[in-house]
Amino acid sequence: MKPVKVGLLGLGTVGGGTATVLKRNAEEIARRAGRGIVVDYVAALELDRVAELGLDSVRTTQDAFEVVRDPEIDIVVELIGGYSPARELVLEAIAHGKHVVTANKALIAVHGNELFAAAQEKGVIVAFEAAVAGGIPIIKAIREGLAGNTIQWVAGIINGTGNFILTEMRDKGRAFDDVLKEAQALGYAEADPTFDVEGIDAAHKLAITASIAFGIPLQFDRVYTEGITGVTAEDVANAANLGYTIKHLGIARRTDAGIELRVHPTLIPARRLIANVDGVMNAVLVWGDAVGPTLYYGAGAGDLPTASAVVADIVDVTRSLTTDPENRVPHLAFQPDAMSDLPILPMEAVQTAFYLRLRVKDRPGVLSDVTRILGERNISIDAFSQRQPQAGSDEAEMILLTHEVREGDMNQAIEAIEGLDSTVGQVIRIRKESLG
Amino acid sequence: MKPVKVGLLGLGTVGGGTATVLKRNAEEIARRAGRGIVVDYVAALELDRVAELGLDSVRTTQDAFEVVRDPEIDIVVELIGGYSPARELVLEAIAHGKHVVTANKALIAVHGNELFAAAQEKGVIVAFEAAVAGGIPIIKAIREGLAGNTIQWVAGIINGTGNFILTEMRDKGRAFDDVLKEAQALGYAEADPTFDVEGIDAAHKLAITASIAFGIPLQFDRVYTEGITGVTAEDVANAANLGYTIKHLGIARRTDAGIELRVHPTLIPARRLIANVDGVMNAVLVWGDAVGPTLYYGAGAGDLPTASAVVADIVDVTRSLTTDPENRVPHLAFQPDAMSDLPILPMEAVQTAFYLRLRVKDRPGVLSDVTRILGERNISIDAFSQRQPQAGSDEAEMILLTHEVREGDMNQAIEAIEGLDSTVGQVIRIRKESLG
Repeated sequence: MKPVKVGLLGLGTVGGGTATVLKRNAEEIARRAGRGIVVDYVAALELDRVAELGLDSVRTTQDAFEVVRDPEIDIVVELIGGYSPARELVLEAIAHGKHVVTANKALIAVHGNELFAAAQEKGVIVAFEAAVAGGIPIIKAIREGLAGNTIQWVAGIINGTGNFILTEMRDKGRAFDDVLKEAQALGYAEADPTFDVEGIDAAHKLAITASIAFGIPLQFDRVYTEGITGVTAEDVANAANLGYTIKHLGIARRTDAGIELRVHPTLIPARRLIANVDGVMNAVLVWGDAVGPTLYYGAGAGDLPTASAVVADIVDVTRSLTTDPENRVPHLAFQPDAMSDLPILPMEAVQTAFYLRLRVKDRPGVLSDVTRILGERNISIDAFSQRQPQAGSDEAEMILLTHEVREGDMNQAIEAIEGLDSTVGQVIRIRKESLG
Repeated sequence: MKPVKVGLLGLGTVGGGTATVLKRNAEEIARRAGRGIVVDYVAALELDRVAELGLDSVRTTQDAFEVVRDPEIDIVVELIGGYSPARELVLEAIAHGKHVVTANKALIAVHGNELFAAAQEKGVIVAFEAAVAGGIPIIKAIREGLAGNTIQWVAGIINGTGNFILTEMRDKGRAFDDVLKEAQALGYAEADPTFDVEGIDAAHKLAITASIAFGIPLQFDRVYTEGITGVTAEDVANAANLGYTIKHLGIARRTDAGIELRVHPTLIPARRLIANVDGVMNAVLVWGDAVGPTLYYGAGAGDLPTASAVVADIVDVTRSLTTDPENRVPHLAFQPDAMSDLPILPMEAVQTAFYLRLRVKDRPGVLSDVTRILGERNISIDAFSQRQPQAGSDEAEMILLTHEVREGDMNQAIEAIEGLDSTVGQVIRIRKESLG
């Protein structure tokens, strides 16, 4: 059979990695796919990279639209990133009957519903394994490997930068800002780290994961998103003393009232496998009603790991070239006409346990004021400790772990506690999950 | 579209679980597959189970051959286990143009080459996700999710019974026999535990995993297989003191000289994620040249977890019913005409590090004799400790960790050490892997 011709948009980190993997493993890939897969046409702004990567016999252009319209190209691989012109390029590729592979989580999370509808209409595939958790084949695992399950919940460490920072804070007692600077120097974090440390990147990935887990449309704008910029070395150490590790998790959970979609720092029991996923590594824990817990671990970013997922998609698409569209794996795991309209729960209705830390004046009755406020809202206390004032201070520190509580009730309780005369400053709160 | 009709062979643990999952998640499965999947015909010796499982409107028989020959059946699901009549039933199903889903690792490991050749000829699929690591979609991950990689090695905890026993021995200092009895009482181990504790079950799974990882034929009879019956509480404790955990691993590794295929107790660094996979859970660590390390964790046995994998295969096969056979995922990941004849290394040529424990007469020159024997074979010592004789004894105990060495050289060294006048009894040896 003649080789499949790939048009590659972008020769940055992932684009270069993809070209490298396709070339280096050409034989192994052809042994699997039953035919060769070759990069035929490359669009990049810096065309010097083409020679550096040894892409000798490819056609090149600086205009990506030429690639997506080229009649020779079977599969367009979009590795430019960002919303625009990625969206326009993918739509144009679809309009020209091309299959598309992309690693672009922002694009899929925000414009996926539009792109998949267009692809469905034209009978082509938009594949996006690399968009969540890099090289871990988590899309395939959930969409196909767990197809027999009703998925109950998913919890993932899906941003390597944030996990690197939290790991360093825990292992070395370092401060957030200090580790962030190192992460930037190491190339783990961008000069503008907002997407990573504020949880936006994780929220993109969570929106995608939740969609394929539950069969709901992509709803990025409904993800509650809280970053790790407020996590202090003190809270990380307190959590460790209590037997917990703080991880920045994306959590999607099916409840009777609707779907929870949330990204936030989370205390999890230190003995859980996922609590021991450290550094820049990613892991996704998926709970299916039949299989129980399964966990998928690997590199969430980087040139070759991400390329691993991109190439897996290219092989999948190659195999599907002659499949009639009705029998392909649906883009969002469930058939487009069988999507569910399960509501996304407002954050106030979400139930979690909490870690609370507060500074109080060291005087009689303070503890009873706090416990009364919690008790009035049926918030029960799982563990409590108080550190006495240091010499020369009259401020003590209280740490509380609560049992599960409705977020709205906790908001009220915290407001009331902060309103006490004896409370100094704000109450620090971090949600806590057992993941059991 | 009309529903796909499944013929179910066997209503034991996994058969019952599969019927339960197909029924309980019928709606969720149809939303994914685009059509219903129904159990239409059941073969079982004890037909009482049919009513217990609520399989009201199915046809039943005690003769499984009637099911595989039935013209109404689209997919035969073989959950009888064992070699025969499973082999004859699957061949007969293939001859009748049926697709087959099986959880039978023994059958695939031993007769897979024959079955896949027959299936290839008839243009049907034999799917076997449940045959390795139960509910973990590891076959799909390696065969499809990592299709862009040259797989370097795979190391798996792929027998839950063995892992339960080793975990209890480590956590509670219990003896092997004691824990085995408990495992039998809990239903984790069979009355005859040979397949589990002697590593045969793991060897079946390793043969399958290696085949799809490297594109080599199934070669169960070439797997070096060592069980855990010789692992003592003392060695488990010694390993822990040295910073290691003993796990019963199946390891398949690509080397320049050939493929290593081996199942044996292994010391691994306690900080590794896979060292923390405890109890009956399974995990497989796969190293691909592009993606680096990835790990897959979940339940390796049990009715519903195994059914999760069986049903995923049924959905996959349902989607492939109209695909032309050339474009399907090949049974063993690589195209049948592109299988590699990479040799399997004899165990003597395998390189690993070792943990050695020996008892010696406490007299001058013993240590130098031992180190001379090791040194003559270029075996270098990574760590050494000696426990002095207890009161009334003149026997000391030596524990050594070596660097990597050829197994053949270690065999000679151990023979020489056991030949020393000062050595008491046999040298205990356990292989050690960094998995880094």
